[in-house]
Amino acid sequence: MKKNRINLLIWAAILLVSSTKLLSQSTIYSNEYGLSESGDASPVVLNMINDAKEKGISKIVIEQGVYHFYPDKAFQKFCNISNHDNGLRSTPFPILGFDGLEIVANGSQFIFHGLMLPFIIEDSKNISLSGFSIDWDLPLASEALVVETYPDKKCFDLKISPDQPYEIRNGELIFLKEGYEHNIDRAIYWDPETSAIAYKTQFYAPISTRDKPSIHYNLGKIQYIYEQYPRSPENSYRGMTNSIIASDIEPGIVRISFEKGNAPKKGLVLVCKGLNGYNRLAPAIRIAAAEDILLNKVSIYSAGGMGIIAEGSKNIKLDSVLVIPSPGKGRMLSTSADATHFVNCKGKVEMVNCTFSNQLDDATNVHGFYMQVVDWLDSTKIGVRIGHFQQKGCEFGLPGDNIGFVDINKSLNPVFNSCLKTLEKINDSYYILEFEDVLSLDKNEKYLVENCSAYPEVLISNCRILNNRGRGLLISTPEKTIIENNFFSTQMSAIYITSDISFWHESGAVKDLIIRNNNFGDCCYGGGKRPVILIDSDSKGSDFIFKNIIIENNKFNSFDAALLSATRVKNLIFRKNEISNSENYIPIYPDSPVFSITESKDVLMEKNLMETGFENILFVDADSKKGLVVRKNHGF
Amino acid sequence: MKKNRINLLIWAAILLVSSTKLLSQSTIYSNEYGLSESGDASPVVLNMINDAKEKGISKIVIEQGVYHFYPDKAFQKFCNISNHDNGLRSTPFPILGFDGLEIVANGSQFIFHGLMLPFIIEDSKNISLSGFSIDWDLPLASEALVVETYPDKKCFDLKISPDQPYEIRNGELIFLKEGYEHNIDRAIYWDPETSAIAYKTQFYAPISTRDKPSIHYNLGKIQYIYEQYPRSPENSYRGMTNSIIASDIEPGIVRISFEKGNAPKKGLVLVCKGLNGYNRLAPAIRIAAAEDILLNKVSIYSAGGMGIIAEGSKNIKLDSVLVIPSPGKGRMLSTSADATHFVNCKGKVEMVNCTFSNQLDDATNVHGFYMQVVDWLDSTKIGVRIGHFQQKGCEFGLPGDNIGFVDINKSLNPVFNSCLKTLEKINDSYYILEFEDVLSLDKNEKYLVENCSAYPEVLISNCRILNNRGRGLLISTPEKTIIENNFFSTQMSAIYITSDISFWHESGAVKDLIIRNNNFGDCCYGGGKRPVILIDSDSKGSDFIFKNIIIENNKFNSFDAALLSATRVKNLIFRKNEISNSENYIPIYPDSPVFSITESKDVLMEKNLMETGFENILFVDADSKKGLVVRKNHGF
Repeated sequence: MKKNRINLLIWAAILLVSSTKLLSQSTIYSNEYGLSESGDASPVVLNMINDAKEKGISKIVIEQGVYHFYPDKAFQKFCNISNHDNGLRSTPFPILGFDGLEIVANGSQFIFHGLMLPFIIEDSKNISLSGFSIDWDLPLASEALVVETYPDKKCFDLKISPDQPYEIRNGELIFLKEGYEHNIDRAIYWDPETSAIAYKTQFYAPISTRDKPSIHYNLGKIQYIYEQYPRSPENSYRGMTNSIIASDIEPGIVRISFEKGNAPKKGLVLVCKGLNGYNRLAPAIRIAAAEDILLNKVSIYSAGGMGIIAEGSKNIKLDSVLVIPSPGKGRMLSTSADATHFVNCKGKVEMVNCTFSNQLDDATNVHGFYMQVVDWLDSTKIGVRIGHFQQKGCEFGLPGDNIGFVDINKSLNPVFNSCLKTLEKINDSYYILEFEDVLSLDKNEKYLVENCSAYPEVLISNCRILNNRGRGLLISTPEKTIIENNFFSTQMSAIYITSDISFWHESGAVKDLIIRNNNFGDCCYGGGKRPVILIDSDSKGSDFIFKNIIIENNKFNSFDAALLSATRVKNLIFRKNEISNSENYIPIYPDSPVFSITESKDVLMEKNLMETGFENILFVDADSKKGLVVRKNHGF
Repeated sequence: MKKNRINLLIWAAILLVSSTKLLSQSTIYSNEYGLSESGDASPVVLNMINDAKEKGISKIVIEQGVYHFYPDKAFQKFCNISNHDNGLRSTPFPILGFDGLEIVANGSQFIFHGLMLPFIIEDSKNISLSGFSIDWDLPLASEALVVETYPDKKCFDLKISPDQPYEIRNGELIFLKEGYEHNIDRAIYWDPETSAIAYKTQFYAPISTRDKPSIHYNLGKIQYIYEQYPRSPENSYRGMTNSIIASDIEPGIVRISFEKGNAPKKGLVLVCKGLNGYNRLAPAIRIAAAEDILLNKVSIYSAGGMGIIAEGSKNIKLDSVLVIPSPGKGRMLSTSADATHFVNCKGKVEMVNCTFSNQLDDATNVHGFYMQVVDWLDSTKIGVRIGHFQQKGCEFGLPGDNIGFVDINKSLNPVFNSCLKTLEKINDSYYILEFEDVLSLDKNEKYLVENCSAYPEVLISNCRILNNRGRGLLISTPEKTIIENNFFSTQMSAIYITSDISFWHESGAVKDLIIRNNNFGDCCYGGGKRPVILIDSDSKGSDFIFKNIIIENNKFNSFDAALLSATRVKNLIFRKNEISNSENYIPIYPDSPVFSITESKDVLMEKNLMETGFENILFVDADSKKGLVVRKNHGF
């Protein structure tokens, strides 16, 4: 009896080893599946993915090639993606429920057509993708050259490439895509001479189709009993009309007449993606509820949203990821929103050796999100509401997560914490949360909840961040964050640390941040009045949500005055930095203080070397003066 | 041992009986759940439904009252609903996965707000709903009175009630709703004197925002490799611009200027629901994959789509269901699409004692749908494509269903049948079907597939069908269909039997139809050149898909000439009918033949009594003459 059992165990072990070996050795090769450079690669790749899943194969090798992907026979899924518009999305790479998958693409080019989401990685572990680029045949955002301006007449002419079909429909310029279209809304100007956002772009015409009041009656009659999402499309266009009129001059030349702002400079490139609520369609790579994900040598040249967004995931590493415009095509734009984005992640987020350039928003943004407590259902149960329409349906947390209750009239530091027991999504905006503890809170106060277990450590190292609209890095995690050896040149602030509980409802504490050995080139050249590093909390109360921030051994060589603004920070060290003036542009706000320190405590500025020529060096308010130490600096 | 087992069995039986009794006796009462006439009833009703599901309770009693439902805390689900626009839909009544549920509402009024789908019944059996009305506080379609017309200037003035907020945005009149809005597109005129569609409404201005070509360039550059859906919103507005301009006259008065058509008569009511692709939001009651469903004494006064649509379901009975405008509110419109609709149903569809009036489309439409064979994947497997964008994602069939292959160049009668083995939805437009048999078909031909197992028997009895846009009944099932004791007065044909494999891709054979003892009042007064009963196949080939149609003992009392047109029908009997002239309107097409018989075989017309004054009685083509018998009629 005993012997038999041992025999059985031995056999089981042999079987296990041999099957594991078999699995680990078996690889899917694209040429065996007939993957071809002509026609639609979607159904073939989908077969490869499905076979890998069914047969437990952990490696897919794609022969080098240029492959075209269409949505018509691709896998489709309704996706709730944070900071994007939700909807049905099509992908040839549905990496769902995998434990262990490596896709090696040997420098292949993946060209997408229409409304697609190239990679969906969900509920998966140990995934590695490498060796390919993602691009669109006809990108979902559009570019047009300013060929003439008529400042006195408030109009300018755009030249549109023959590759970009368009029409003038009801006075609007519509860029036509494959199964999609957009108007001229959300436009900004790039300068083809620098490949960067145009200097002082904010002084030119704001291109917006809701820029003046419409004629409207009885709008107030809609007395809706619940709070609305003011920025969602069903609300944000109400009561407003468009003053931008497009007219046909000749094939390929369209005149844009406007009422507000100034004509752009001739020679700039207008880049636009259309109306808010319809223009953040899908990222290039979506990662959700996943763990141990590596993207290595992946280039993203275009996307109908962000480059890469990870949500509710653990341990994400990006190595040698490039988000840049498609090489050799003369495009200004890479992705039409942030290059990367991390929401409610855990473990460690690492980005090394990456370039994030020319995207229509920030290089990265690491944050959680807040939900509003709207119902006290019983002693341990609450009803909570999503704060921003582009967070609808997103994953807030898992049972076992430590949830913090923030009293919005006190501070963004939680006043109460409890362990999440269950989460039920009634719909995409209203969830019911049950806790392990009785919720001993004053029910008359207004609370938000945040997932305190879902903030990652962050390392951003040896990356180049430049030429994009928006900021460089937005960091909103209290866990250890290191930003080192990077280069920045962004049209807004290079690094932005803020709290936000009213607009995106997504940013909170930063408690352990090191910014070191970076090179900051020209920043804030877009025309907004901002410093290179902006730290600004709107948390109420006397405690601090921003603390322990060290900025050291960096080189700052921008053209304008403002370098650092810190509001409500405790224990800020700014030391051993070298500050010079690039003189690449005429300063826009030369009188802004280089350093502005307000409502802060325990600030040390030492051993910095400054030579800029700007005169207004340091503004410190009374609150911050007490704990401020300024010593051993050169130049101030 | 044996005794013990018997004891155990007895105990099990007792337990089973008592628990069944307990379950069958237990009822949820709304007052015990705190259902209130004030505030949002959605979360309370949702609790009742969820408790019924969890506890196996089969009856919910709702105390008589007026209850308001909002989407904000309602259950939400992505719905693929045939002949509607797909999307996330919110309901307080998610009847999902029930076997046995009776909801008794004692004459309650359910008032909905915003984008809602009042009832979703899916994957459920033995469901009975009774005793309530469904209405909207602010209906999702809009009405406005024509108060002045200026035919010479091609414009007219609309008066909009203060209850209906609106704005003029970029020259368009926009009707503002709760979380939704629409423009003036898809408009038609009702006559408040008759509560019916205006006489000759088709002669008035077509209200369409795609009525003239836009300026467009390089549209042909988009060489998409797959066939597109021409009517889907991403395609159907391309290349077209709007010639309808709205301007503000005074609060509540809007001037509509148009280029095509004629001004409507003063005193008519314009009813509109906005752009195609965005105006068929949700029915009042959705039934899918369900069995044995009874709706009794249910009134539907409004809906953002159809009244009731059942798909892939078996045995549906509607008794005393009213689809009518909200009583006492002066509205012209009931539902904004068909009153009822049945797709791919099985068993029996019964409608008795119902009224379907004032809806923006047909009273009912019973059909299956066709998918296009686009890929021959292996000897038993094909890839098929949805034909119409508003069928995307709909259920085609279940394993075991008998699927017919139709060769579109031959006939709509299938040339091959096989049993469905598996169905895999790759996405909402492309499915993979596997069959039990080798598909012995010529792969060079173009095929459609239809689900031959999914056609129901139909009984429509003692119903009133009137005052709507569209037709009365569209019947497309080869199973036994009886239409008896009904009253019809519709602005298009009262009964329409057609085949459609190119537009909606949804209509096929009719092989056993009796139309008897009905009263047909004024029909076809909208201005289209149609007969009261229209039977018209575009099936190619020499066989017949329409046969065995009996029309007997009916009374026809319309104002115009055309009564019956039959094309490609075999074995048609028209007998013992009484035909008179109502003289309620001036005939629009008095020279149309009363009867037109073409490409048909074995037609018998006997013992009819006609007194109308129309002179062109009978048109028969050469094909049909041979088998035609006309005898013992009075008046012709």
